[in-house]
Amino acid sequence: MFQTFDSASDPTAAAERVAKLREWLAARELDGFLVPRSDQHQGEYVAPGSERLRWLTGFSGSAGVALILTERAYIFVDGRYQLQVREQVDLRIFTIESLIDNPPPAWIRENLGKGARIGFDPWLHTISDVTALKKAADKSGATLIPLADNPIDELWADQPAPPLADIELQPIAFAGELAKDKLSRLAAAITKDGASHCVLTDPSSIAWAFNIRGADVPHTPLALGFAILSANGRHLLFMDKRKLTRKVEAYLTQLADLRDPTALETDLIELARVGGRIALDPALAADRLRALVEENGGTVVLEPDPARLPRAMKNQAEIQGSRVAHRRDGAAVAKLLCWLDAQKPGTLDEIKVVTQLEECRRLVGEETQMPLRDVSFDTISGAGPNGAIMHYRVSRATNRPLREGELFLLDSGAQYQDGTTDITRTVAVGRPTDEMRERFTLVLKGMISISMLHFPVGTRGCDIDAFARIALWQRGLDFAHGTGHGVGSYLAVHEGPQRIAKTGIEKLREGMILSNEPGYYKEGHYGIRIENLIIVTPAESIEGGDLPVHGFETLTLAPIDRRLVDADLLSAEELEWLNTYHERVLSEIGPMVDGETLSWLENAAAPIG
Amino acid sequence: MFQTFDSASDPTAAAERVAKLREWLAARELDGFLVPRSDQHQGEYVAPGSERLRWLTGFSGSAGVALILTERAYIFVDGRYQLQVREQVDLRIFTIESLIDNPPPAWIRENLGKGARIGFDPWLHTISDVTALKKAADKSGATLIPLADNPIDELWADQPAPPLADIELQPIAFAGELAKDKLSRLAAAITKDGASHCVLTDPSSIAWAFNIRGADVPHTPLALGFAILSANGRHLLFMDKRKLTRKVEAYLTQLADLRDPTALETDLIELARVGGRIALDPALAADRLRALVEENGGTVVLEPDPARLPRAMKNQAEIQGSRVAHRRDGAAVAKLLCWLDAQKPGTLDEIKVVTQLEECRRLVGEETQMPLRDVSFDTISGAGPNGAIMHYRVSRATNRPLREGELFLLDSGAQYQDGTTDITRTVAVGRPTDEMRERFTLVLKGMISISMLHFPVGTRGCDIDAFARIALWQRGLDFAHGTGHGVGSYLAVHEGPQRIAKTGIEKLREGMILSNEPGYYKEGHYGIRIENLIIVTPAESIEGGDLPVHGFETLTLAPIDRRLVDADLLSAEELEWLNTYHERVLSEIGPMVDGETLSWLENAAAPIG
Repeated sequence: MFQTFDSASDPTAAAERVAKLREWLAARELDGFLVPRSDQHQGEYVAPGSERLRWLTGFSGSAGVALILTERAYIFVDGRYQLQVREQVDLRIFTIESLIDNPPPAWIRENLGKGARIGFDPWLHTISDVTALKKAADKSGATLIPLADNPIDELWADQPAPPLADIELQPIAFAGELAKDKLSRLAAAITKDGASHCVLTDPSSIAWAFNIRGADVPHTPLALGFAILSANGRHLLFMDKRKLTRKVEAYLTQLADLRDPTALETDLIELARVGGRIALDPALAADRLRALVEENGGTVVLEPDPARLPRAMKNQAEIQGSRVAHRRDGAAVAKLLCWLDAQKPGTLDEIKVVTQLEECRRLVGEETQMPLRDVSFDTISGAGPNGAIMHYRVSRATNRPLREGELFLLDSGAQYQDGTTDITRTVAVGRPTDEMRERFTLVLKGMISISMLHFPVGTRGCDIDAFARIALWQRGLDFAHGTGHGVGSYLAVHEGPQRIAKTGIEKLREGMILSNEPGYYKEGHYGIRIENLIIVTPAESIEGGDLPVHGFETLTLAPIDRRLVDADLLSAEELEWLNTYHERVLSEIGPMVDGETLSWLENAAAPIG
Repeated sequence: MFQTFDSASDPTAAAERVAKLREWLAARELDGFLVPRSDQHQGEYVAPGSERLRWLTGFSGSAGVALILTERAYIFVDGRYQLQVREQVDLRIFTIESLIDNPPPAWIRENLGKGARIGFDPWLHTISDVTALKKAADKSGATLIPLADNPIDELWADQPAPPLADIELQPIAFAGELAKDKLSRLAAAITKDGASHCVLTDPSSIAWAFNIRGADVPHTPLALGFAILSANGRHLLFMDKRKLTRKVEAYLTQLADLRDPTALETDLIELARVGGRIALDPALAADRLRALVEENGGTVVLEPDPARLPRAMKNQAEIQGSRVAHRRDGAAVAKLLCWLDAQKPGTLDEIKVVTQLEECRRLVGEETQMPLRDVSFDTISGAGPNGAIMHYRVSRATNRPLREGELFLLDSGAQYQDGTTDITRTVAVGRPTDEMRERFTLVLKGMISISMLHFPVGTRGCDIDAFARIALWQRGLDFAHGTGHGVGSYLAVHEGPQRIAKTGIEKLREGMILSNEPGYYKEGHYGIRIENLIIVTPAESIEGGDLPVHGFETLTLAPIDRRLVDADLLSAEELEWLNTYHERVLSEIGPMVDGETLSWLENAAAPIG
């Protein structure tokens, strides 16, 4: 299994660890220390040795910060973790704060006393983060002090070593563009930004630029490392050589000088000393990098990671790979849904479904000679009220049977070498209520509205987000998350900068893959989400139109539960979209399944109305 | 007439004036000077003596900046003025630049030589403007120099004196809240911003806060002046006493110390010297004010004008006033449209319609004892291809007959003491083409979509803008302006901060009045725009809903040309909205008109389908 069902957290160790940390701080005349969940790369997943926040506090969520002061300690988490954090941390030690409404800078500005000295590890906070923290500390008269050593690393006796998973090449058949060509494009972008070099700190960017994949963190095929790209000289790739086979080393040596990760600081200092103009992404790069450049005579050029847009705009090979991956994944999901419908009432629970789904993906992966490499995130398997918890992660403690008359929400994804998938289906267990069908259909209308949309070149994700909501809004309903996130190509399932959300200020461009996943959540009762991945089509002229417009091609192929659709609420156009979609699902997935699954699929994809 | 049809511009004077300006600059060792169209208050309309840009260049548009250098001169205007500027300025002297794609800061950064000394009048540029200009000048090695005297004012021999129109009180029946209560609210906001004082520089804010109206600029009932509000002391109002009757003076003296405008600088210096923390709106306040505070020991607190949100959120009296004003205005527009339909083909032109419309408004104003005070902007009266020019202003030179088979676009508004109106109707002259009817109906669908919308508390204008566009987008069409602007209450017809546009980041709140005006423009052929004013309704629960939602109440009441509606393109819901709207128009406007107009209205408002 690529995922576990353990709670993976122990609140009892915190008392001693926090006490030791306080001793460490006191010895250095510090009044506090910030412990973020992030590592040096700011990704969603971190290696075990970077789980400092969990080690110290017991909290295992994917976002959060602790602020340990001499008397009190605070842990800042967002809305989705408000329940979980209360179960995982010792509330005698930690006060819970909102990471959104009262994040550390706001808290510091309002609460920190004059003269307080707060330490932080400048490798774990971005330039933007530190700017905000320093501004807040200034206002309250406190001082933020970058520490050369992270106290957690000193106190954590059995801290796991950095991961050393093998690096493999991403074949050109799937990558679609040679690394040397990508690197030339990036060098041109660096020149355009007025810089001499650029530090790539995001392992997704390095994986994309060098056409490599690794396995250093869960669920995303990343090799942790750094690169310093040069506008017109040799590139430097900082990667532990123990991760490289001979073949991979020979390949990478053609593209860059291979350097040990420990050489990053000295190499950067050297570039700074000769007047280098170093581009850093303020939202991604560690503040330590900024300081190294500025303190050694270099100039920092604050510019977004130059790889983020080209990585987001998939090329034809990546698009074609994704299409094939989604057919494979759709076949696996169809198998699962068929199996699910065939089980005796009362025999299933959330964990059984997750296990079976992974098994279906493995099977179809083997049959199609494109094995499942990983799940792209921990499956969200939510029965009844658990479905209403937006980022629910099933554990043995919360595992719930699938009961008659309830809804079951299943949000999962896979990593195949040809593409990353992410799909949510909500299904009726037994007979759904009229309200469930009404709300499901309203969510479906939002999903269809995005799917059918055309929009002019230059339209941003935030411009179209509300189309996924209007059917809900008109009935006084909404959902409290964005409509869609970017998705990588055998990379991170949550990839920026593209988004369909109120915060999605990036223009939607040809080849970007996004999720389209409106939902509705009735707390304590049920959750509904319907999610397809979609891809921005090339701008094309419509007959009689003035402007070239983009649209979306739907990648995800799996039936949408017809038992939950109230066709009376759909317009003729929406119904036609649904029936056409199901026809396509049958024609593309049908040939990949047989027996019971095929019969089930024929029924599940039959036209409505 | 409240509007003229003159071109009001003389390009021939520029050569001599620019030459004299260059002499003035040379004598002071300056290499250039910036001449914006703005005055000290940054409003849309300025007094005649502030038309420095027009005096110097001949350009009469409502936005623009000239940059006069020793050898060359540049004028920056936006897209709507690209044609007009070429007719109004001497192209041997001026090079045209885009105010949007290459505004003065970008131009300065790229083009200005090292060491160049560029003067500017710090009263005419906002804090934000100067920050951007200085940053750009730094990059190019140039210096921006605030001048104590504006050279134009020295060279302009017959420059009109500042206006001295009488100030009148806005009665409580229309204002709905006593000035003293408004001022208390503002004082609390200043305290909350951490300031001791706030300079109100926007005459709309002063008019709103003190319940006064003036007539210092065209089309907006403003009295030009400043106020320094105190968080917990006496307010100061800087207003020329010659504008005040005894009664108004007695009234204002209760609210603030009346000061001569010439005392503003010394009073502000005094406050700064005793350590005042002075709130200034960076987007509205002159950079001169910032400098006065900072150079005299005070602290500038950059915060938005505290009056802008309360002014935008109309109270019950303002809402009721607006409803009544819109019935009156609708009756006037109905009279005009009836008259228009009754004229013999070929006898009408754009100017005749404008003249007749003003006459209709005067008549209905007199009948209802609420006289037309002004038009709220120069009427846009565009026949055929002139309708496709988004900000067309008819002059004798451009006046065009209304021809059979063409569309006619009429965008106009009125100022009544109880409310400001703004309405656009597009009508068919003779028989429209199928394409015109299709496009009109697509625009109408957008207008209806906004009208019928419900949206959760916290939704911003930018979140809903695309609902006005989707019907067009689906056919590869769009319009190149926002969907709606804010509208004042017997104040500016273009009022911030509320907007429905991609740039509309302000939350839509109860009582905000906005326009709802999608369009479609086929260059060289015709323009379509349908505009109603709408008001954000209180957040209310919908039966079965989870969240309180706002909606819009439509204020504008005038028939939408049924001859241009293709009912086959409307959904059942949209058709119902249109028929219900027309039923309402007839029931509310019908009693205010009679004879031919009533018969015409009964027909124009009859149900479709």
